[in-house]
Amino acid sequence: MTWCRFSSGMPGSGNRMEFDLIEAIRARVDVARSDVALGIGDDAALLDVPANRQLVACTDTLVAGVHFPAGTAPGDIGWKALAVNLSDLAAMGAEPAWALLALTLPDADAVFVEGFATGFAELARAHGVALVGGDTTQGPLAISVTAFGWVPRDCALTRSGARVGDAVFTTGALGDAAGALKMLMGGGSAPAALSARLHRPEPRVAAGLALRGSASACIDVSDGLLADLAHVCVASKVGAEIEADALPVSPALAASFDAPTCRDLALSGGDDYELCFTAPAAREAEIVEKIAHAGCRATRIGRIVAGSGVRVLDANANEMEIAHAGWGHFSR
Amino acid sequence: MTWCRFSSGMPGSGNRMEFDLIEAIRARVDVARSDVALGIGDDAALLDVPANRQLVACTDTLVAGVHFPAGTAPGDIGWKALAVNLSDLAAMGAEPAWALLALTLPDADAVFVEGFATGFAELARAHGVALVGGDTTQGPLAISVTAFGWVPRDCALTRSGARVGDAVFTTGALGDAAGALKMLMGGGSAPAALSARLHRPEPRVAAGLALRGSASACIDVSDGLLADLAHVCVASKVGAEIEADALPVSPALAASFDAPTCRDLALSGGDDYELCFTAPAAREAEIVEKIAHAGCRATRIGRIVAGSGVRVLDANANEMEIAHAGWGHFSR
Repeated sequence: MTWCRFSSGMPGSGNRMEFDLIEAIRARVDVARSDVALGIGDDAALLDVPANRQLVACTDTLVAGVHFPAGTAPGDIGWKALAVNLSDLAAMGAEPAWALLALTLPDADAVFVEGFATGFAELARAHGVALVGGDTTQGPLAISVTAFGWVPRDCALTRSGARVGDAVFTTGALGDAAGALKMLMGGGSAPAALSARLHRPEPRVAAGLALRGSASACIDVSDGLLADLAHVCVASKVGAEIEADALPVSPALAASFDAPTCRDLALSGGDDYELCFTAPAAREAEIVEKIAHAGCRATRIGRIVAGSGVRVLDANANEMEIAHAGWGHFSR
Repeated sequence: MTWCRFSSGMPGSGNRMEFDLIEAIRARVDVARSDVALGIGDDAALLDVPANRQLVACTDTLVAGVHFPAGTAPGDIGWKALAVNLSDLAAMGAEPAWALLALTLPDADAVFVEGFATGFAELARAHGVALVGGDTTQGPLAISVTAFGWVPRDCALTRSGARVGDAVFTTGALGDAAGALKMLMGGGSAPAALSARLHRPEPRVAAGLALRGSASACIDVSDGLLADLAHVCVASKVGAEIEADALPVSPALAASFDAPTCRDLALSGGDDYELCFTAPAAREAEIVEKIAHAGCRATRIGRIVAGSGVRVLDANANEMEIAHAGWGHFSR
């Protein structure tokens, strides 16, 4: 990979700055792994995937003004750029290992890079992820991370395994990130418990690992529960019913919004990076215990049914009309 | 991976368009590989790395207005976004296998996407590369590709193996892409033989494979020969001398510029995506033959010496002063 493009167009004019950028990142993201035969500093990384493991790989981009508001703390951007990718690995039941970072910056802002690298590194360290290479480019602020992990052969969780009769679960609580964004977009501030969920989402890696062999399908909630569960339904050729009253809402969210708003945020808000998964209903107790062991809560929120689409039911099992909360991402 | 972010901020407002984008790309990039257990359409790709192979992975970003001028044909952008990454794999001696595509677009421009996907697919097909996932995002036009390949264990070419006494070689011809860009930036047009090198560079994958076991060090020429050979020298803790008269220049370049300009373009121009490599001088004949068998030319252009830095020598072995040609990338 080329960490050599910062001063594009004018070779020599900014090599020193670029070198500093790379060193700033390399110095902070200092996870060492014996399976990295060659990391930052060559044309590509050279990596050892363990025998009998399938490689799991994903990429997600964050764009300034789209996925985070201008003015977001650099450390939060660094954390989140990695978090959204580790969340995709978690949804596959994968064990994270390595990351590549493609960072596009308007200028060689050392303060930004230091903050970004520090936030990225905090999460990388928490999950033992080594940064093995990348690319630094001049342009409008955007970050593409590629994350790598692995699963034992044929053990990955996918979107396509949900079966009629399965129960639908979610980890953690839903709507916090969208609630925080709603308050920030309204010009106010958000309680720390909510804004932390928006700026520093915790990818549910341990929960994903715990669900191997138990969940029939899994997805991470990045675009909102209804949208993401709909992807599971399409891939699995089934429908789903969600019980509105079963949706897990945090005390901080409940204290900040009325109940209908909390419900809409939990259903349609995005960026929570919880795992939504399905499993045979009979395994509920086992799953709740496994997820608790992974440091998280699992809540049964509905069921898989024949047909297609996702319906939301009230306490009388009548279908509800749901407005799109629409706070999944920063809206320009 | 999430192909689900196009209409960020306003869920539901653009899902149909986004779906079409994904389908347009998926339909065109139709390389099927049995080592892809799960490709586009889940949270991550699931991939089988062959036994006794090391994974080689790299990422490079192209930004509109930085790496290509506004108005570049979408098909050329698609081709080049993959080519610059396959070139990094080639420099490692890796066999390419898969790619992830993170595409950031200002709007859901179906014509752009179709052209982009067609160009990307042409090169992917030529090298048997399967597109296994990615992310579509709204924002200023930029493309990050992650490319994956593999090498037999401990057979990768790296930057760090050059030894004093080795000869320095390059594949193909140098300076064509920078020559084309110089003509285009001057408001004129460039001969097809030059502009093809700028817009549709051919990654030297077969040459990289042929160099396994023969080359002591290798890098791809993306930022210009002097800059890239300097990376080899730093990594190998050696210096290098280049014979200006030995630099391979294409007939089209020689017909377009005077000799000193051709020399400067060959030394400092970027974007040619040739391989610059080192090997024991005694292996020159063997290497030239191997590279010819890979459909390419290899030219001995200098030697590795003790010390540091890269010097350019004239016909009398006197050091030349070299001005930076500075046409490595589109300059804003």
